[in-house]
Amino acid sequence: MPLTDPDRLFPVNEKQRDLARALYATVSGLPIVSPHGHCDPRWFAENARFPNPAELFVIPDHYVFRMLVSQGMPLADLGIPRVDGSPVEADPRKIWHRFASAFSLFRGTPSSLWLEHAFEHTFGIDEVLNAESANAIYDSIEGQLATEAFRPRALFDRFNIETLATTEGPLDDLKWHQMIKDSDWSGKVITTYRPDAVVDPDFDGFAENVATFGALTQQDTSTWSGYLEAHRLRRDYFKKHGATATDHGHPSAATENLDAATAADLFQTILSGAFTPRQAEVFRGQMLTEMAKMSLEDGLTLQIHAGSRRNHSAGVLAQFGRDKGFDIPGRTDYVQALKPLLDAVGMDPNLTVILFTLDETVYARELAPLAGVYPALKLGPPWWFYDSFEGIKRFREATTETCGFYNTAGFNDDTRAFCSIPARHDVSRRSDCAYLSTLVTTGRLREAEAFEVAHDLAYGLAKTAYNL
Amino acid sequence: MPLTDPDRLFPVNEKQRDLARALYATVSGLPIVSPHGHCDPRWFAENARFPNPAELFVIPDHYVFRMLVSQGMPLADLGIPRVDGSPVEADPRKIWHRFASAFSLFRGTPSSLWLEHAFEHTFGIDEVLNAESANAIYDSIEGQLATEAFRPRALFDRFNIETLATTEGPLDDLKWHQMIKDSDWSGKVITTYRPDAVVDPDFDGFAENVATFGALTQQDTSTWSGYLEAHRLRRDYFKKHGATATDHGHPSAATENLDAATAADLFQTILSGAFTPRQAEVFRGQMLTEMAKMSLEDGLTLQIHAGSRRNHSAGVLAQFGRDKGFDIPGRTDYVQALKPLLDAVGMDPNLTVILFTLDETVYARELAPLAGVYPALKLGPPWWFYDSFEGIKRFREATTETCGFYNTAGFNDDTRAFCSIPARHDVSRRSDCAYLSTLVTTGRLREAEAFEVAHDLAYGLAKTAYNL
Amino acid sequence: MPLTDPDRLFPVNEKQRDLARALYATVSGLPIVSPHGHCDPRWFAENARFPNPAELFVIPDHYVFRMLVSQGMPLADLGIPRVDGSPVEADPRKIWHRFASAFSLFRGTPSSLWLEHAFEHTFGIDEVLNAESANAIYDSIEGQLATEAFRPRALFDRFNIETLATTEGPLDDLKWHQMIKDSDWSGKVITTYRPDAVVDPDFDGFAENVATFGALTQQDTSTWSGYLEAHRLRRDYFKKHGATATDHGHPSAATENLDAATAADLFQTILSGAFTPRQAEVFRGQMLTEMAKMSLEDGLTLQIHAGSRRNHSAGVLAQFGRDKGFDIPGRTDYVQALKPLLDAVGMDPNLTVILFTLDETVYARELAPLAGVYPALKLGPPWWFYDSFEGIKRFREATTETCGFYNTAGFNDDTRAFCSIPARHDVSRRSDCAYLSTLVTTGRLREAEAFEVAHDLAYGLAKTAYNL
Repeated sequence: MPLTDPDRLFPVNEKQRDLARALYATVSGLPIVSPHGHCDPRWFAENARFPNPAELFVIPDHYVFRMLVSQGMPLADLGIPRVDGSPVEADPRKIWHRFASAFSLFRGTPSSLWLEHAFEHTFGIDEVLNAESANAIYDSIEGQLATEAFRPRALFDRFNIETLATTEGPLDDLKWHQMIKDSDWSGKVITTYRPDAVVDPDFDGFAENVATFGALTQQDTSTWSGYLEAHRLRRDYFKKHGATATDHGHPSAATENLDAATAADLFQTILSGAFTPRQAEVFRGQMLTEMAKMSLEDGLTLQIHAGSRRNHSAGVLAQFGRDKGFDIPGRTDYVQALKPLLDAVGMDPNLTVILFTLDETVYARELAPLAGVYPALKLGPPWWFYDSFEGIKRFREATTETCGFYNTAGFNDDTRAFCSIPARHDVSRRSDCAYLSTLVTTGRLREAEAFEVAHDLAYGLAKTAYNL
Repeated sequence: MPLTDPDRLFPVNEKQRDLARALYATVSGLPIVSPHGHCDPRWFAENARFPNPAELFVIPDHYVFRMLVSQGMPLADLGIPRVDGSPVEADPRKIWHRFASAFSLFRGTPSSLWLEHAFEHTFGIDEVLNAESANAIYDSIEGQLATEAFRPRALFDRFNIETLATTEGPLDDLKWHQMIKDSDWSGKVITTYRPDAVVDPDFDGFAENVATFGALTQQDTSTWSGYLEAHRLRRDYFKKHGATATDHGHPSAATENLDAATAADLFQTILSGAFTPRQAEVFRGQMLTEMAKMSLEDGLTLQIHAGSRRNHSAGVLAQFGRDKGFDIPGRTDYVQALKPLLDAVGMDPNLTVILFTLDETVYARELAPLAGVYPALKLGPPWWFYDSFEGIKRFREATTETCGFYNTAGFNDDTRAFCSIPARHDVSRRSDCAYLSTLVTTGRLREAEAFEVAHDLAYGLAKTAYNL
Repeated sequence: MPLTDPDRLFPVNEKQRDLARALYATVSGLPIVSPHGHCDPRWFAENARFPNPAELFVIPDHYVFRMLVSQGMPLADLGIPRVDGSPVEADPRKIWHRFASAFSLFRGTPSSLWLEHAFEHTFGIDEVLNAESANAIYDSIEGQLATEAFRPRALFDRFNIETLATTEGPLDDLKWHQMIKDSDWSGKVITTYRPDAVVDPDFDGFAENVATFGALTQQDTSTWSGYLEAHRLRRDYFKKHGATATDHGHPSAATENLDAATAADLFQTILSGAFTPRQAEVFRGQMLTEMAKMSLEDGLTLQIHAGSRRNHSAGVLAQFGRDKGFDIPGRTDYVQALKPLLDAVGMDPNLTVILFTLDETVYARELAPLAGVYPALKLGPPWWFYDSFEGIKRFREATTETCGFYNTAGFNDDTRAFCSIPARHDVSRRSDCAYLSTLVTTGRLREAEAFEVAHDLAYGLAKTAYNL
């Protein structure tokens, strides 16, 4: 029996299942467009082998290690490095064994689907992972990783990736992207401009970052106009390295549209370091509108990823740093929050702002009504915890009736787990085909239309929304 | 192939579908009770022909034009009049062609179901609307609109409408209703008292409106007692024109129960124009309780439509005015908000307050628990963006287990798109039959009971809740 | 035809239904573990007969009488005692008749499933309750209640209850539990420490309660250290009467982690009675963290039941007192609220904190992400209004993908309606089997795993989470 069910995620009713299968057959082989994610461009620049199964599947994947932690496994036992450099588990086989022994924790989760898809389809494994099979599976993966066919570029090609966007900070020199470009490999790996480090006053080292930002761009970033110009130049630099989009990871979706003098004054306050939480919020909000205005000039799509309460555990943050699975969603408002930006530029059809949320209650109440009327807005796919069968189902059911399919932006895998990319796109394609088959069999969509929409959801919409 | 699937919205499983069909067969022909909506009574008073397909299907329907706008179509190109009277597209055929060319945007939306139902069942069209078919369909509809059989009264009769409630402001003279009454036509078109213009201090021209209100009723509306008496008289006038209900479109569900002296003082502050947003909110809240108390005297059902963030785009409001598809839902609280009114009159079984929401998160958490215990409360059907298959499904699944069917108030079409009325009631009846068939086939309701409930949901509950 | 469908709550599709049936067959006969509820221990101590059908099914069950009240039935007519002792309906047969006549109100609600399960499976009734059958069914139940086989202990044994936890206040002498222990009956009825009366400054008689608490424990509860020590002693006393858990019914999930001096100062302010609402909130929040720290010492599981807006109707509270069906859920935050407690003790795998909510919007957004990473957290089952087929379905669909099954805590019936216990566990088992069968048939879980999970959900997880 294969590890993964060939009909997984399709409706059980035969009539629906047959149609879902037929729809899926037309999109399963489409190239992968991955317009937003967190893969490391260095992998493709250097094309070195992945070190071992633990470093491929456990250590970089916060979905995986957070589940083990939730049942009492210390982060250090999984090889997660400590901030102070003190020792953590260094034996990848031990880490793998701990992961394998706890694999039943993932029952019913998308992680199990993603992992088993990679085990089966990338590594040809047909055994369920558990304490008994751990070593054999480790050896099998390890053996394959040592071969040319499992180097990053080879996998990229085998995964049929048409475009992979990574995400870099504004101070990044993009040298890995340059190396890829200069290489004889034709894979399309592009960057994305994510300026949080010089936009968010609460970011670690913000003031220094702004100074470095000035040095990099030869602008006086101690003035508002120099700071804005530095952004323009840096956006242009990123664009030259393939970027078609910017990305903004803010605690809320707050936007502002201050007059220039007020904005300049606020910038000075922010630079001084003597700002209130509210002023930091206003500054981030103002910068979203500034970025939207620059997007109207340079054509970059603007992505807003709002609402994560980052680093919830003070202890884990102190010991292990950021991005350790302790980012928790919170209630997020979009209606009042986006009004300043929308009043400024929301009616312009030449702007594309893609909204993401960690608060599903806003799908039907806020995001679909907004995207269903403002030309500048599109809805990003279900994000993070909702990038799953049920998450996608809730998204489609809650948004389609109000904003249709064509105000959505296709799929993002948004992952740093490279081997999960095919699996994630597959889950998205299957889930959408399941949804479409339900619409057709309940008389809400014609069959011929469903085939068109399936293609758009799997491929076309992402290309349009991100100008790819 | 017919435009609309005869089994649309029914479950796919044959057992469920058979029962849904059987249930639907007993309610599909029931007369339409439309106790809340926004049709123009002048249509039925004058019985003039509808001008053209664009004025029938596009220009008055914000569901339709908002979707076109979301993809970059200017409102002016769709013939939406500007506030300053400057020219907009005046050729209905061009407007129709733009609409037809973009019809695929509506895939998966209730608008496509409503429109195709009207095209097929009212106008006998069997072709899908698109750029190619646009002209032929325009001609067909246009030709039919020119005939007697497509005048408003004839359609009203053909639609099998038993009662149609319109909604008028407190200063309306109700002359169209009088003309209908005085005519030889027996169609039952009644009014609804919607006093927002003299209740909401933020309403355009509020102070003038209150003065006119006094002149109309020969009451001194510069005093609290005169103002309240004017409401009593006006409610009575509306009741004489058939009204069985009042309606209140407030930004929130806030209510208050101030003592008379405090209320009178607040009224003076409001009239002076020098009030805070909070005082405006308190005044609106006090008026809901005053209206509820008057309902106990005159028997009018009280409807609360709370939570729309109206006119979200400042630019669109300035150029095109209100009701242009830019009303966006927002989070709305009911539990604390309704407490003052409920403490005052909520235990009185002689009062009927019907609650509507644009925030679906309150269905299970707030509205069903409240309506499931307070004798005065009933839940209105899913409103606005949620008046759809998925919207109705979520409503039933979230509310029935806590407040049952008999604390709900049947269906409202709430539309200003006359031709969508049969379609909207049909969607509601089908969706409810689908839900009931699921309850029966999963052992949660007996089959015989389902037939009774189907009838109540399609017909009986609306008549009871609105005293029709 | 049996009153209840043997396949109730199972999916309609035959393939899914067959699997659901097979799963259910392996768990339907498992002993009932009821680790949280509100049965009266006196029933089992004295083992007196239940007085009559009205006192068994109507008067103690707020789910039942709130529905009747919602349609205008006065509480007094249902025999609900008044605070001032003035007369209410005293004839149980009249109460029963009113209930029976209105039984169709419960169509589609879990109450109808629970009641009919008890009628059929406990009392052998095969007729639908209504005005006509009311008397015969009353006589039948009444006749059976008079027999030994229907005394509390006999029913407890017949219901196959392995453990039943009741809930007692901190001043309770636990004499009924002592009587049970001293009896020759082997039924396991344990207590739970619910200290709200001495923890919540807004509790009726709080100051007196704290004084009594001191007297009971021979501690000086006018000092912070004495007060904490009294808790320690009282927890120990409860533990000796079987308690394995504490329970906390707070208006919010707010927690605090003050330093000892600040906490001691706050305690004095609270004791003085001159505290603000905010100080009361902080004190309750501090006490949750204190309780968690004591749990680390004594091993008691800590339950947080947050978010009920108690006694919503001022009139009903004044006339009939607490717990009369007028507790309404409200929006509740967990992410910020729990941070102080989690920063203090959340990473300790030796602590078990079980979270309950009345705000389903937090399942996917807050609770599953928190429980999916903090070792100390587990999710309690759907609570109160959500303890139903749809409620359980929403809970599983919203939480499983993020925190899996093993960060949940099995089922609680949480009832004071003794005869509903088998029915409630049955609904839970059926609903979970339905969910699992869907996972398997859509390729998200292997069939063999589903059987293991079904057993865990029905039995194992509750035992682990509550140390039973």
